[in-house]
Amino acid sequence: MSTDKVLVFGHQNPDTDTICSALVYADLKQQLGMNVEAVRLGEVGAETQYALDEFGVDAPRYVKEVANEVDKVILVDHNERQQSVQDLDKVQVMEVIDHHRIANFETESPLYYRAEPVGCTATILNKLYKEHDVSVKKEMAGLMLSAIISDSLLFKSPTCTKEDIEAANELAKIAEVDLEAYGLEMLKAGADMSDKTVDQLLNMDAKEFTMGSHNVQIAQVNVVDTNDVLDRINEVKAEMEAVLAKKGLSLFLLAVTDILTNDSLAIVVGEQTKAVESAFDVSLNEGQATLKGVVSRKKQIVPPLTNALS
Amino acid sequence: MSTDKVLVFGHQNPDTDTICSALVYADLKQQLGMNVEAVRLGEVGAETQYALDEFGVDAPRYVKEVANEVDKVILVDHNERQQSVQDLDKVQVMEVIDHHRIANFETESPLYYRAEPVGCTATILNKLYKEHDVSVKKEMAGLMLSAIISDSLLFKSPTCTKEDIEAANELAKIAEVDLEAYGLEMLKAGADMSDKTVDQLLNMDAKEFTMGSHNVQIAQVNVVDTNDVLDRINEVKAEMEAVLAKKGLSLFLLAVTDILTNDSLAIVVGEQTKAVESAFDVSLNEGQATLKGVVSRKKQIVPPLTNALS
Repeated sequence: MSTDKVLVFGHQNPDTDTICSALVYADLKQQLGMNVEAVRLGEVGAETQYALDEFGVDAPRYVKEVANEVDKVILVDHNERQQSVQDLDKVQVMEVIDHHRIANFETESPLYYRAEPVGCTATILNKLYKEHDVSVKKEMAGLMLSAIISDSLLFKSPTCTKEDIEAANELAKIAEVDLEAYGLEMLKAGADMSDKTVDQLLNMDAKEFTMGSHNVQIAQVNVVDTNDVLDRINEVKAEMEAVLAKKGLSLFLLAVTDILTNDSLAIVVGEQTKAVESAFDVSLNEGQATLKGVVSRKKQIVPPLTNALS
Repeated sequence: MSTDKVLVFGHQNPDTDTICSALVYADLKQQLGMNVEAVRLGEVGAETQYALDEFGVDAPRYVKEVANEVDKVILVDHNERQQSVQDLDKVQVMEVIDHHRIANFETESPLYYRAEPVGCTATILNKLYKEHDVSVKKEMAGLMLSAIISDSLLFKSPTCTKEDIEAANELAKIAEVDLEAYGLEMLKAGADMSDKTVDQLLNMDAKEFTMGSHNVQIAQVNVVDTNDVLDRINEVKAEMEAVLAKKGLSLFLLAVTDILTNDSLAIVVGEQTKAVESAFDVSLNEGQATLKGVVSRKKQIVPPLTNALS
């Protein structure tokens, strides 16, 4: 390719932070004079669509691969290659803006890498507007606010920091919305699982991790009623077993997170289910256990499970 | 360990940027109220000592390992684990401030990671003082200036960016020195190799890399007279062969960089010397070749060699 265009995208199975952060960072970069376009690697979920509709922004274009279009990319909200575009090794990663651990990421050349241990990529983007002295438009403020509400479950997640809360309050003013009221409506829009297929449930927000010598998939769904999933538990577990076999996973954990109680129901299959018991000090009953107060995959599920499997 | 103390350090075989950036970032963190200490993983070179003496700052304490003292560390000027402290896997990396490619780096938890494609870590640190609204003391300005001069070979290296030059000029004012005059004296202080042992020559600034399936060591020395090395070429190559065998390397490249002409003499041993010929389009003569205009290991040696070996 001989284009100076750069694509900006978040992870596969995009959530609200990934979609909004790609759109917002593309906006900032465009204002700084760069030829960039936000794209997405998967379906836009109902929660994200609610946010896009509220602030009148179109979803990014869907792409399956990027090397056919550009030489250079910017990653937001992820860095691990197995969570990224399938042909990532064929392009140069110019920049990463992220708030996750770093793993399975390697470059040939120096790059701009900005990770901070905050609850949301958008919180970092809000800082970057300030560092570049660019003012934040109303609709971009709305998208960043939506991302923070989504990743922090309205500030309930332990990943949520003081910086996220301050950014959200600041952005709610620019976006001209009532933070609590808008936030709850947005979360509820994404938490109705009754009309989702089992396949959709498992792929809504699924990420694959390498833990020790094991490949582990952790999917998460937010619900207001766990029966949306429990009503179909046999079908759910059968499909999880199928994915497990197909991908050669050691473990597949589905976290069904109740956004009102802030507990998660873990549903697990695979040869390493014992690791779940030791990681969370619970006993599995037919492959299920309630993880009290667990709402964050990144902070409350990945670290203890990585420990248990390493 | 149950201490809140954090150690800050750069890479093994420390150069001026690594030593100065550890001292400077520790200063910034202390001013922000954190309990930190700068340490070093190796000997202080003559160039670095010149800078420390000029600005009246003590060298950091030498450490061989860190997990016996602290739980958490901050890395500056490097991220690849083979360039870091030997027991890095026993501590948590809280932060990284760097300007190199990212490789062989993995964390369990989110962290603050700040890399920028500039010529020197100190250029990023100068920004961080501003972002935290902390003023830069004269001696810290002197150390950052010295680091930039060192890494950019007084702005001659292709790794040097506009930001590095601007930072250096700004810092020279705070440090109250004549940039060009001070810079050349500092570089010369580090470029007299006549009194160094062969072992010192090879370890002064040596880094190990994984390229494709090969382990490669690349050492670099700055000289004002290449005869400082060529007078002892047989002894140098014999010692390189010994290191090669001991470490199981596929290639050992010593770059002897003339800071006045800005060319490098490459001296190579190992089974993969052909990769050097194809990477730089040169013919080796008794394991030697002049690399015209090559002064930067990071930008002009590592990428083409990685390509040739992958």
